[in-house]
Amino acid sequence: MTASASAPDPAWLPDEAFRALGSRRVLVHGSGTPADTVYEEVTAACAAFGGEAYRVADPGPDRPYDLLLRTRPERMTELGAEGFVVERRDDRTTVTAGAPHGLLHGFFHVVRLGPAAFAGDLTAETHRPALALRMLDHWDNVSVHPVMGQVERGYAGGSLFWRDGVARGSRGELDRVRAHGRLLAASGINAVAVNNVNVHAEEARLLTDRIGEVAGLADALRPYGIRTHLSVTFAAPVVLGGLPTADPLDEAVRAWWAAATGRVYAAIPDFGGFVVKADSEGQPGPFAYGRTHADGANLLADALAPYGGTVHWRAFVYDHRQDWRDRSTDRARAAYDHFTPLDGAFRANAVLQVKHGPMDFQVREPVSPVIGAMPDTRIAVELQATQEYTGQQRHVCALAPMWSEVLRFRPEGETGASVGELARGGLVAVSNAGDDPYWTGHPLAQANLYTVGRLGWRPDADPFRVLDEWIELTFTPGRTPDPERLRAGLRAVVYGSWRTYEKYTAPLGVGFMVQPGHHYGPSVDGYEYSPWGTYHFADRDGVGVDRSRATGTGYAAQYAKPWSELYESPDTCPDELLLFFHHVPYGHVLHSGKTVIQHIYDTHFEGVEEVEEALRVWASLAGLVEPGRHARVAERYEEQLRSAREWRDHVNSYFLRKSGVPDARGRRIY
Amino acid sequence: MTASASAPDPAWLPDEAFRALGSRRVLVHGSGTPADTVYEEVTAACAAFGGEAYRVADPGPDRPYDLLLRTRPERMTELGAEGFVVERRDDRTTVTAGAPHGLLHGFFHVVRLGPAAFAGDLTAETHRPALALRMLDHWDNVSVHPVMGQVERGYAGGSLFWRDGVARGSRGELDRVRAHGRLLAASGINAVAVNNVNVHAEEARLLTDRIGEVAGLADALRPYGIRTHLSVTFAAPVVLGGLPTADPLDEAVRAWWAAATGRVYAAIPDFGGFVVKADSEGQPGPFAYGRTHADGANLLADALAPYGGTVHWRAFVYDHRQDWRDRSTDRARAAYDHFTPLDGAFRANAVLQVKHGPMDFQVREPVSPVIGAMPDTRIAVELQATQEYTGQQRHVCALAPMWSEVLRFRPEGETGASVGELARGGLVAVSNAGDDPYWTGHPLAQANLYTVGRLGWRPDADPFRVLDEWIELTFTPGRTPDPERLRAGLRAVVYGSWRTYEKYTAPLGVGFMVQPGHHYGPSVDGYEYSPWGTYHFADRDGVGVDRSRATGTGYAAQYAKPWSELYESPDTCPDELLLFFHHVPYGHVLHSGKTVIQHIYDTHFEGVEEVEEALRVWASLAGLVEPGRHARVAERYEEQLRSAREWRDHVNSYFLRKSGVPDARGRRIY
Repeated sequence: MTASASAPDPAWLPDEAFRALGSRRVLVHGSGTPADTVYEEVTAACAAFGGEAYRVADPGPDRPYDLLLRTRPERMTELGAEGFVVERRDDRTTVTAGAPHGLLHGFFHVVRLGPAAFAGDLTAETHRPALALRMLDHWDNVSVHPVMGQVERGYAGGSLFWRDGVARGSRGELDRVRAHGRLLAASGINAVAVNNVNVHAEEARLLTDRIGEVAGLADALRPYGIRTHLSVTFAAPVVLGGLPTADPLDEAVRAWWAAATGRVYAAIPDFGGFVVKADSEGQPGPFAYGRTHADGANLLADALAPYGGTVHWRAFVYDHRQDWRDRSTDRARAAYDHFTPLDGAFRANAVLQVKHGPMDFQVREPVSPVIGAMPDTRIAVELQATQEYTGQQRHVCALAPMWSEVLRFRPEGETGASVGELARGGLVAVSNAGDDPYWTGHPLAQANLYTVGRLGWRPDADPFRVLDEWIELTFTPGRTPDPERLRAGLRAVVYGSWRTYEKYTAPLGVGFMVQPGHHYGPSVDGYEYSPWGTYHFADRDGVGVDRSRATGTGYAAQYAKPWSELYESPDTCPDELLLFFHHVPYGHVLHSGKTVIQHIYDTHFEGVEEVEEALRVWASLAGLVEPGRHARVAERYEEQLRSAREWRDHVNSYFLRKSGVPDARGRRIY
Repeated sequence: MTASASAPDPAWLPDEAFRALGSRRVLVHGSGTPADTVYEEVTAACAAFGGEAYRVADPGPDRPYDLLLRTRPERMTELGAEGFVVERRDDRTTVTAGAPHGLLHGFFHVVRLGPAAFAGDLTAETHRPALALRMLDHWDNVSVHPVMGQVERGYAGGSLFWRDGVARGSRGELDRVRAHGRLLAASGINAVAVNNVNVHAEEARLLTDRIGEVAGLADALRPYGIRTHLSVTFAAPVVLGGLPTADPLDEAVRAWWAAATGRVYAAIPDFGGFVVKADSEGQPGPFAYGRTHADGANLLADALAPYGGTVHWRAFVYDHRQDWRDRSTDRARAAYDHFTPLDGAFRANAVLQVKHGPMDFQVREPVSPVIGAMPDTRIAVELQATQEYTGQQRHVCALAPMWSEVLRFRPEGETGASVGELARGGLVAVSNAGDDPYWTGHPLAQANLYTVGRLGWRPDADPFRVLDEWIELTFTPGRTPDPERLRAGLRAVVYGSWRTYEKYTAPLGVGFMVQPGHHYGPSVDGYEYSPWGTYHFADRDGVGVDRSRATGTGYAAQYAKPWSELYESPDTCPDELLLFFHHVPYGHVLHSGKTVIQHIYDTHFEGVEEVEEALRVWASLAGLVEPGRHARVAERYEEQLRSAREWRDHVNSYFLRKSGVPDARGRRIY
């Protein structure tokens, strides 16, 4: 299990994480693909750490195993395919699953527990995923796109799945795909979409004559319980099938999809389904035929239904050719306006995949009002692990606390369901992984990749405990000379990193203010006069977007009470969302007691100071972190600090020039 | 001579332009390449229009020719290689040149005269080019550059010289190269640089093992008297020669350049010389070795001297990694600061190629102070025919009036020499031509291509007469049903187009305010917080850059009197350059009597109105202009109008939001 020099970083599965388990006598009971994988894992761990691995048909109660990993089909109803029970008594730890997939998750649970899995008694604890689907969407292009590169919004090298225009297929390359699946399984992910939602000509053909390449990837991912999904173009019947139309109500179109889907399942029997971005940012969709998005989604759902597949239909539909002069159009309203009238019209195996906020993965957005407004539709919540707007893996920005806020948000107030409960279609994240040796470019960005599956498994989990889990696995502080200093240092640089990033970038929920196109670095007016619908309306008197019902775009009224009322007034709107919902004077006093302008100045100075401090803390961990990883992070901190200072000075100068209000503390603004 | 359907647009050499000459009896006397070309031209013209072409060794005075084109070597001293005399008496027009190149220019002079060349008597008129070198620099890459495309800052399709990574070489392709040379010769151009000044790896090798490709292009251009130049990388001895250094004082480096240059001349005996962009925007240069630009230029000059070649050394050297927070650094100062200390240090065959303004081809800049400040250096003035910052050939922007202002500017005031006189190294323009059927994308942009050579020939020419000349040749109004309406219409859309463009873009000389990267369309703050040194410092009180000696960057002091004094004070600074030299309050009253803010509003509304009017005028010319050309221009006007409105609204909104000053006329600002 020792990594070679050229092997990728072990991330949260270093050899050390298997010590406790690998030094024991372990029995694996169960058959089928993921159970076989569990046995392989156990065997490797025991070989590394001196334990003993066994596999028998019926272990019997009295044999002297320290750990028993077993499937009990009769408990399938109770535990589901992925659930398991863990308990310990009489010096034996037992994991009981209803099915092999549950055994795999139980195995990784024991890995996470480490030595604690073998100390004292453990009362029986049942674990079942709250959300059945925990999915990673790779925005990977088969070939390098001239503008978007190989991985759209990717900051971690090339694609793990595709190279030079074809699927990775050689042994060594598939090892890496398999290793990726292994990491994902250990984090709780059970589904992957292997290509970009923007489906270009070449990628369209993956659905048909190139499905064999997808099957090869599916074979590499299957041992870790990951089902493969494919992004497809809605225009496929025309561009691939030669039909004159892609009209979802056309019989020939329906027949084409049925036949194409049948061929997909012939190649990949456990294929997960399709992902579709339709009528969005230039992608084709049902609007061209005067049909609804439900018509479009149901077309594919019907094709998939016989095989148990699901269509993920993205709700990211808005006018990206907006006129900035027209203040009545509000991009934030778009998904709600488009989709809520269709509630109840989608098939049971059609999932509406909704971005967590109404805009586009900004550092701070309100929760999308769509999520609480479609009770008769299966909603999946989409997160963005890849840090498009949050520092592009050159900045540390651990998103767990933000995602957790989203998942714990209750659209109907305290007595209603949480987003995590409403997301019956699952939790989906845009992948931040690539063929970079550290998987995610920035080694600390691995935390975001790790978090998705864990929150999908338990959306109400404490995000800081999830981060602790990741820290323990990845950095194995217990094996270093100074565990507490390492833990404290890692928490110091990771826990608050999202809020730090928020401080030095766009203030108070107003969003954007990034450089157009690549979205890295500040440009306060970068999208202010653009067709993308992303404005802040700053003038010499104030800033922010009036989205109230009374005087603005009416977006606030898309929420149920109490949120519609809270958001409606600047007096009750939470500070951190104030400029998302209201245009206020620079002198407006926040609940914090500060004026808006002073808040802007203060947070921007603080944000940079926090990066400076994080950089110092990181430097102090030099002896406690693997040198290559330490150096990579240290190097990225230099860039983060440079960039944070640029953000601070650009934003502060912009608002000083515009408002004319000096900083109350007289600090240098240019 | 009739063009086929797929042939490129004839531009200013339509068949019709040859009617007067082609219907006469014409005798060509003279031998050698360009004289042969003249005979071919005459033959073709006479074949088309019923005239008779003759070529004899000695025409004798009494034969019945209508036009005599002759070389008289004994008049070489008086006329130079390119000069000629034209006269007409006793019903015979005679062009007398000292050399074949002069004969070619005399021939095109007769073409320009049209019927007037054969009407009544003409007193002998001597024509000699004011500037010996009139050059077009093609920023063409051999292959398509991933960011910059094939023609850097090109808006007219692919390269005329290169395709798919190699020089165009087949017969049909070289026909187009030759046709390009013919158009250029007819406009007065006599030199072409065939590749981009940003020399990438592939292009570097044109100097050595790929010189044969350049020779093929030179062969196609030579018949029209065009000498070929090559952009080279200063690092060539390292990247091509394998030497450890490119230090200009290193003997091995000098020997390498001498040998390389010798091989170039073996392939192209009339090779023109090298063009070098060194220590500029990332290109390598002598600074790396602690040497001066004179050391660098002289290295190449010495290598070229034995063959009569010239090095064009670009003065576009500045810090493109500037910190916007540092207001003491001024990009406008850079060329002067770098180069004037080197006056007198350059070899006789080294030409310092200076952009006409201190920044980068903005719609309005002062004249570069370098031009008047280096009396002991051969200066070439560089213009930009390609409309990088002036509408990218989607907007009509005839630059002749602007270029003429530059060339007639007198750096030492009324009694001193003009820029046209000081440009002893020649006039150079960045090409706007490509393999587009209309050569320049926008058919009316052909005017800019035409103007360069004509102004090089006569820098004090009236720019509107040059535009008239272009109109007469290109549109042959005399052959249409309504010549005066066509002339008036074309003048209406062309003459004032530069000032119209200025009105709706960046105001009062402040420059930039374009979208970063591609430079098309407005972004007032696009470069405001960037490292490129292109700022306007607009705040809620005022706008502009203080470049005075007293309180600013001191740039104004780089001029001689009277300009240093005029520019120093906002009271005497010309309105159109006010914001280039001064930061003033929005209420500052211009010499025009308007405040700065009202000037901004008014010009932006006017500019759009002028485009609307131009579009109407153009539409009215439908029956008088060749339909394909008319349609292409009409289509571009739609985009120009859309873009002009975007400029108007973006700029006006920006300044209204910032200044809070309402438009005195109450027009709609967003």
